[in-house]
Amino acid sequence: MEKLVYLPKGYQAAGVACGIKKNGKRDLALITSDIPAVAAGVFTRNVVKGHSLKWSMKHIQANPVRAIAINSGNANACVGPEGDADAAHFAALAANLLGCQSEQVMLGSTGVIGYRLPMEKIEAGLQEAFSQLSVMGVDNAIEAIMTTDTFPKLVSIQVELSGKTASIFGMAKGSGMIHPNMGTMIGVLLTDAAISKDLLQKALSSAVDKSFNRVSVDGDTSVCDKVLLLANGLAGNPEITAEGNDYAAFVRSLESVSVALSKMLAKDGEGATKLVEVRVKQAPDGETAHLIANAVCKSPLVKTMIFGQDANCGRILTAAGYSGADFNPDAVDVWMGDLLMYENGTGLRFDEQKALSILKENEIVITIDLKAGNAEDTMWTCDFSYDYVKINGSYRT
Amino acid sequence: MEKLVYLPKGYQAAGVACGIKKNGKRDLALITSDIPAVAAGVFTRNVVKGHSLKWSMKHIQANPVRAIAINSGNANACVGPEGDADAAHFAALAANLLGCQSEQVMLGSTGVIGYRLPMEKIEAGLQEAFSQLSVMGVDNAIEAIMTTDTFPKLVSIQVELSGKTASIFGMAKGSGMIHPNMGTMIGVLLTDAAISKDLLQKALSSAVDKSFNRVSVDGDTSVCDKVLLLANGLAGNPEITAEGNDYAAFVRSLESVSVALSKMLAKDGEGATKLVEVRVKQAPDGETAHLIANAVCKSPLVKTMIFGQDANCGRILTAAGYSGADFNPDAVDVWMGDLLMYENGTGLRFDEQKALSILKENEIVITIDLKAGNAEDTMWTCDFSYDYVKINGSYRT
Repeated sequence: MEKLVYLPKGYQAAGVACGIKKNGKRDLALITSDIPAVAAGVFTRNVVKGHSLKWSMKHIQANPVRAIAINSGNANACVGPEGDADAAHFAALAANLLGCQSEQVMLGSTGVIGYRLPMEKIEAGLQEAFSQLSVMGVDNAIEAIMTTDTFPKLVSIQVELSGKTASIFGMAKGSGMIHPNMGTMIGVLLTDAAISKDLLQKALSSAVDKSFNRVSVDGDTSVCDKVLLLANGLAGNPEITAEGNDYAAFVRSLESVSVALSKMLAKDGEGATKLVEVRVKQAPDGETAHLIANAVCKSPLVKTMIFGQDANCGRILTAAGYSGADFNPDAVDVWMGDLLMYENGTGLRFDEQKALSILKENEIVITIDLKAGNAEDTMWTCDFSYDYVKINGSYRT
Repeated sequence: MEKLVYLPKGYQAAGVACGIKKNGKRDLALITSDIPAVAAGVFTRNVVKGHSLKWSMKHIQANPVRAIAINSGNANACVGPEGDADAAHFAALAANLLGCQSEQVMLGSTGVIGYRLPMEKIEAGLQEAFSQLSVMGVDNAIEAIMTTDTFPKLVSIQVELSGKTASIFGMAKGSGMIHPNMGTMIGVLLTDAAISKDLLQKALSSAVDKSFNRVSVDGDTSVCDKVLLLANGLAGNPEITAEGNDYAAFVRSLESVSVALSKMLAKDGEGATKLVEVRVKQAPDGETAHLIANAVCKSPLVKTMIFGQDANCGRILTAAGYSGADFNPDAVDVWMGDLLMYENGTGLRFDEQKALSILKENEIVITIDLKAGNAEDTMWTCDFSYDYVKINGSYRT
């Protein structure tokens, strides 16, 4: 968790416990913009989509947004037509409190699938959250969207736009069922920059592609996952309407926030003890690089090897080999940190003590060098531990 | 393990400990046919291929085969040109003992990747194995190809071919790194039926597609994996040279042997406590059915749920949703055994006690009914336990 985290101008947040989670922890977050904000979103590509997510997908294009309401403990997914009605009701309850239209409220729900939302609890919770809205409410809001996360994930940075200082804030929850494109993760990004809707969506899609879509915890992608980005313009910068310097600076900053959150998501993968960065270098094209990075990040054998601190790097080459990418295995180098393990596809007699010292670190970089071009790809994952099994063997209980 | 297992006419086998495995267990198997046998093979599609495997791929098309030699404890993979030389040497040593050509010896190697084969141990081991060849040597041979397997996998059945009784014998090893197409698995199938080389390959490819390529333990596929099938014709049946009744009977029997071995492989997946059969029914086409079966079998969230005996079946629908298959989620039923969990994409309030009693069984059937056609697919997997992590976190040590 970054040290200094604050909401951009004109945003407030709250998080309360309304009784959806059995353990009494916070489970309902409300985030508002004082004035209607331009909105962008990226949503799960899972064929099965949660009802709250479908509500947001439906309305984000048409309306400036006043609020984002997210509950944890229940995914509002796979419950039939009542789930859509519950989502509409959820949005209407928040809209009533805020004095806006239902369609100006974006929704998120995360948790167990197949159970209806307890609407009375949601209603009471929204009232309490509304009464607690504050510019300091971030810590409670992030807690309220966490499920199996072990630490809150918050980032904020500043960016200069034509002489005005704008802020970009981001919060995200993981931590299992994460994989491109959009595992069980929810990201909320807020900025006070002024930017057109089209460019906001373009900036978000670009940033997500280099960050949240480059995280794999277990290869599962869920039905409720999204990143929402609001821009309310209160920073006072001239509205960004073309791809000039301001747009470039905004995208860079948005990407920094997104990458920082993504690395936190990987590091907090369910049961994770280590953050693993997988870099594929000198690939003939980006698709080849990505296929290989993706297969290595997903491989349970690679992930258990890192948990066990056992430098069995043939598994990395093996995963690359079944990734679907076409490459010459006899040209590949594999590095663990700064230790060369395979050269031209051949295992080296490496220094076991040095390998162990690298594997003992909290953050491990695996580099796969194809020596066949200039394209590259970077992804983040975590190791695979006993606790992953424990957490997911008894999720409902 | 089936009760009555025997080699078909004209085959002998042996398995010895030659010191490749650090624990002193058997690690070298030799299987011979008294006369040259017609051979067929199916090999890993991994871009990275082991040196012993490449030897077999190269020579299986041209030559009738006299022997199969397989070592465990070392994969003979990713060691550079020396690995190919070691494979040729390995085959030559066996050929010398048998008085045949090197190219008539098929090879297999399984174990850790990136280390050269200890050729002196192989040489001594082959001599010992040759001296122990026997029609009763099956139990030692299967032991010698096992790595993390917890039980030997052997099957034999008889088939009537134009009034003559032929036998089909199969043995296989798993148990992690198994996934279509060909994880770290080696299968050896032997028959005394007389059948042409083309039809033998066709029969094998067909059987493998419905059996070994329908097993997923962890989604990883390895670089050394193969199924070999020899047919020496000693049963005395008229050679099968066309796709008539005899061919159909032979394929059915070969498929039975292969499916039986495949279910054993899934049941003995690393750390597995349960065999899971995933059936996709009423799909519009086979590809759709297979994509969904595959995604459900691979999902760590589904597999940990089954280990934890927690009927969190939204994960099954979620995995189907990200499988890449196109289907209507609002039409899908999901069954756990004979208990309907989701109907038309909506979670039911099911009997928790009944669900628990199903999940307590050793074999669990998950059925996903798309209600959209007549195609279907069946795959086998296992649950995902603490022991998978334990086994794979310290494989080399």
